[in-house]
Amino acid sequence: MFHLFSKLLTFKNYYLRTMKSIVLLGAGNVATHLCKAIHNLSDFKIIQVYNHSEKSLIYFPSTLHKTSLLTEIKEADLYIITVPDDAIVTFSERLLIKGKLVVHTSGSVAMKALSSKNRKGVFYPLQTFNTNVEVAFKEVPICIEANNKDFEKEIIKLAQNISENVVKMDSKQRKQLHIAAVFSCNFTNQMFAISDDILEKSNIDFKLLLPIIKQTVNKLKTKKAIEVQTGPAKRKDLEIIKQHLNLISNKKNKEIYKLISESIIKTHE
Amino acid sequence: MFHLFSKLLTFKNYYLRTMKSIVLLGAGNVATHLCKAIHNLSDFKIIQVYNHSEKSLIYFPSTLHKTSLLTEIKEADLYIITVPDDAIVTFSERLLIKGKLVVHTSGSVAMKALSSKNRKGVFYPLQTFNTNVEVAFKEVPICIEANNKDFEKEIIKLAQNISENVVKMDSKQRKQLHIAAVFSCNFTNQMFAISDDILEKSNIDFKLLLPIIKQTVNKLKTKKAIEVQTGPAKRKDLEIIKQHLNLISNKKNKEIYKLISESIIKTHE
Repeated sequence: MFHLFSKLLTFKNYYLRTMKSIVLLGAGNVATHLCKAIHNLSDFKIIQVYNHSEKSLIYFPSTLHKTSLLTEIKEADLYIITVPDDAIVTFSERLLIKGKLVVHTSGSVAMKALSSKNRKGVFYPLQTFNTNVEVAFKEVPICIEANNKDFEKEIIKLAQNISENVVKMDSKQRKQLHIAAVFSCNFTNQMFAISDDILEKSNIDFKLLLPIIKQTVNKLKTKKAIEVQTGPAKRKDLEIIKQHLNLISNKKNKEIYKLISESIIKTHE
Repeated sequence: MFHLFSKLLTFKNYYLRTMKSIVLLGAGNVATHLCKAIHNLSDFKIIQVYNHSEKSLIYFPSTLHKTSLLTEIKEADLYIITVPDDAIVTFSERLLIKGKLVVHTSGSVAMKALSSKNRKGVFYPLQTFNTNVEVAFKEVPICIEANNKDFEKEIIKLAQNISENVVKMDSKQRKQLHIAAVFSCNFTNQMFAISDDILEKSNIDFKLLLPIIKQTVNKLKTKKAIEVQTGPAKRKDLEIIKQHLNLISNKKNKEIYKLISESIIKTHE
């Protein structure tokens, strides 16, 4: 009996030793979604969430320690910075921890922007994160960079625990990927927002566009976007383009229509 | 026995009388996909395809009569014009048929553009059509307009036979819908083409963007685009925008980045 108990204790110690503790720094959408994704893992455990204001912390599980004081940040195996891009440099300098493993989660901030008092790494999940919109993390590409091989292995392991799509990428490539994501996600979403606005003014349901949007995206699975372009600009139908420009009342939208049509025409010259 | 035979003949006549014959005018992508969608219907039958050049006709089933001569166009219950937008007016005038039911399939051409020597209607499938890319026609919204109630009923019936998404819409609304489709489909596809170009230059696989694109589109099922925008412009992160602009080498793409970012910032003011 005593023997078994001792064995269990040894197992518990081993388990605790191999389970890595994580502190989340920042409490926005990236932190919220990462927290959910990491929550049920057996090898990693979030032990604390820090945020400069207490307000956003209420959305995190009550089982986590929460703090808005830098002095209260706990000892952990990994620190994940999710503060806004323009705050990363200052924030990583202000951290009181030293000699620890610290990653940020930004597409556009170089790894070297992190303070040199800790090991530096990047854990960039290429996804668009909103409050109350579920994310299938298993599909989300996670781009990894680290200034040390062992550290790199450790964050690759964490990434592989939450996603089937883990890639190594340096800061220069990651910036280009982020720019491409801005075009493919943010700008695309703005095209949808403009469409919605146009249709609302004519009492037409935006949902009518969902099949054509779905098809536009489905084509990307097997074809290059440039190969499957359609529409007036692709056909160089200047008469329809002129008509459309006359019918768009919003000045900015008119400019956008003109510029992207020119871009399509140029692409297919 | 004779009685049964006579009954069968009556049935055959009735069947032939109720099965509507269709002539497709034009042989591009819209005609090809419409032909496939109508092919297996029991109430409608395509009997002929016309195209001004013989070349494109070879892709149509050999069971159809094909012609490149206006004088050879057959008698039919319905004529579907699928020629390019800028050719519709002239083409419908040049048709030798009179007093027939004629529709065009364009989003941006008014119904009244069709020649008055025939009944006028519009049968606009809101979809992006490419060679060799399958279309799930059951989901495609078909926008219907006609200058006569019986005629309208007839083309609504055809539309409902190939799609579960049939709507009546006047020429003015249809033009606005087409403009919205250009933003949501053609311009979105150009955003993907630009992303592809950017990534190719950095040796990054475009497929990495598919999950974020899928999520961007999935959100539209339950949220308005304007509500779910993310990214540097939404956050008014002018530093990242400046960095991105410096990293985009293509002049036109730089202009597009700047203009759409401004548009997002303005939308979220």
